[in-house]
Amino acid sequence: MTGAYLTPSIRIRRTPFSSRVEQAGVKAYTVYNHMLLPQVFESIEEDYAHLKRAVQLWDVAAERQVEVVGPDAFRLVQMMTPRDITSMADDQCFYVPMVDERGRMLNDPVAIKRNRNRYWLSLADTDMLYYCKGLAAGFGLDVQVFEPDVSPLAVQGPKADQLIARVFGEEVVTTRFFRYQTVSFQGHEMVIARSGWSHQGGFEIYLDGSDYGEALWDLLFDAGRDLDVRAGCPNTIERIEAGLLSFGSDITIEHTPFEVGLGKYCDLDTATACLGHKALLENREPERQIRPLTIAGDALPPIDCRWSLTNSDGESVGYVSSATWSPDFAENIAIGMVSQTVWNAGTILDAQTPTGVRSVLVREKYWN
Amino acid sequence: MTGAYLTPSIRIRRTPFSSRVEQAGVKAYTVYNHMLLPQVFESIEEDYAHLKRAVQLWDVAAERQVEVVGPDAFRLVQMMTPRDITSMADDQCFYVPMVDERGRMLNDPVAIKRNRNRYWLSLADTDMLYYCKGLAAGFGLDVQVFEPDVSPLAVQGPKADQLIARVFGEEVVTTRFFRYQTVSFQGHEMVIARSGWSHQGGFEIYLDGSDYGEALWDLLFDAGRDLDVRAGCPNTIERIEAGLLSFGSDITIEHTPFEVGLGKYCDLDTATACLGHKALLENREPERQIRPLTIAGDALPPIDCRWSLTNSDGESVGYVSSATWSPDFAENIAIGMVSQTVWNAGTILDAQTPTGVRSVLVREKYWN
Repeated sequence: MTGAYLTPSIRIRRTPFSSRVEQAGVKAYTVYNHMLLPQVFESIEEDYAHLKRAVQLWDVAAERQVEVVGPDAFRLVQMMTPRDITSMADDQCFYVPMVDERGRMLNDPVAIKRNRNRYWLSLADTDMLYYCKGLAAGFGLDVQVFEPDVSPLAVQGPKADQLIARVFGEEVVTTRFFRYQTVSFQGHEMVIARSGWSHQGGFEIYLDGSDYGEALWDLLFDAGRDLDVRAGCPNTIERIEAGLLSFGSDITIEHTPFEVGLGKYCDLDTATACLGHKALLENREPERQIRPLTIAGDALPPIDCRWSLTNSDGESVGYVSSATWSPDFAENIAIGMVSQTVWNAGTILDAQTPTGVRSVLVREKYWN
Repeated sequence: MTGAYLTPSIRIRRTPFSSRVEQAGVKAYTVYNHMLLPQVFESIEEDYAHLKRAVQLWDVAAERQVEVVGPDAFRLVQMMTPRDITSMADDQCFYVPMVDERGRMLNDPVAIKRNRNRYWLSLADTDMLYYCKGLAAGFGLDVQVFEPDVSPLAVQGPKADQLIARVFGEEVVTTRFFRYQTVSFQGHEMVIARSGWSHQGGFEIYLDGSDYGEALWDLLFDAGRDLDVRAGCPNTIERIEAGLLSFGSDITIEHTPFEVGLGKYCDLDTATACLGHKALLENREPERQIRPLTIAGDALPPIDCRWSLTNSDGESVGYVSSATWSPDFAENIAIGMVSQTVWNAGTILDAQTPTGVRSVLVREKYWN
């Protein structure tokens, strides 16, 4: 393991699943929304291989929720995103870029519609609660915003459907992608959505309250022994293969949705209530954009970075933001931000890496 | 060392001083405002003893700034705090509780007045930038809010004045408490304030830009060799002795300023523009309040916690939020939240600690 020690502190919160994660031998964490988020169990490579062949339980409680509830809930959520949420069904989840009035990214949560007047925002790593509070106060909205005691547990991998069917019944497995049902566990109604931060399929169970986390974990673990269920976590190799972007690494507060390839979620004809609408209209033709990249040379460890990309004249034309060796695709796969002059697939660039200059190929598509 | 590994990630930012902190042998970090904050060098106990006898350089770049600039800058800052900032001099720093419209704590930054239309908020660990953005958009304020590339370096300890005098001149040492001057370093004007998160005295230098961090560190280190200057960091033992509260541990978003002993910063007669003013007026008589505590028994390690406090009838009457053995005061010192029924100095309570029940004495004052 590389990395430093993380001092224990309640300021960096444990989760309802932390004791089980520790029993499973977690080797490293990151901190996400002021909470522990596991990063490694066996090794990133072994976790990756297992994720793609079996089923894993992920403690993603750090995907904290903001609950927006009240007569102006719809209005507040639509203010923050250029994706038109009018068409959301009552059992639907939407991946929503959220932007400020300059049209710059603040977060990229999954919004879960509980009903017309109640939404959850399942967050990437920024305090969107504070932005919601500021807007609600400033616009005088009739809405409550707070962090509910809700902790997602992801069940991911090709055998996730089998495991969920055993525990919650076949009916739940009929849930369509980015839809949810509710299931009853120990007398609590809990949301279970077909979603998750991998390309392997599966579910996210929104644990309601902190008292049932260990029981839920144990239930799933016991039911899945012959499926080789293990503790896991979002995996850098698998998520780069699938083109799943990481807020804070691939996406920052300086980017527009168009720059990070989320233009398809910008409904600029209809989502005019988004505070960033005008700025996004003016910036809909980005001068740089995120691209999948192949990097030549020896195997790279999983890393997020800011390696400069240069063109044949030696001019800076962007940077690599995430990279790793992919065992399954047998090459170094990466995500980077590149300027318009070089973003066509097939372009060859140079990356200035800590181990020297490496040749980079701009690709059309992610791997998954 | 206890604790888990922290996975390296650019989402958890390094600082302009990180290379020097690593050279100095940092043993553990925490994550604070999406950035690395050192926690231990030799050991918490040795770091403590050295801090109280010599001088330390602290990489507190993680105290990120929000810059609020424009015609409505004063208005926006005053909206967020019940402390009347009208009287702030142009070279002054104010410790300001910041609250939402419910009068609940959002952060407890040091506000630095650069001029009438420009403030920095030197933050505790929450994204106040997002709250500022929300308010500015909602109220249509004529103001810019952003995170400038400014990274505080603290020089703390009884010999801090000597070190600063050598490097920046005697004139700087005349700076009064919570006032600042500007000094020139490599052609940059930098704020240097008499402030810092210890009771030992010293300064915070607001490094302007990221390119001069190592040079500034080296300059101070070289000039202070015979003063036994070392790398250090905010120290749990020293800060509990001094009654310096930690946001996220002792203070949370559920507390009013009155509950956490910051009533003296609530100017409810004049700071009527604070959005939380009405709520604070209604809640100015708290039913619980933070107190210094002495805990009986064997030496406790430095810890933040949620140990339940019970009265003689076994009823829950609060909790311990921070505790440690103090070598200098030769007892276990602590900070806790206790209900009105038991907050008088001299009251004896029980704390439910992981090592059993311990007797607790409610104190009048902190130790420092």
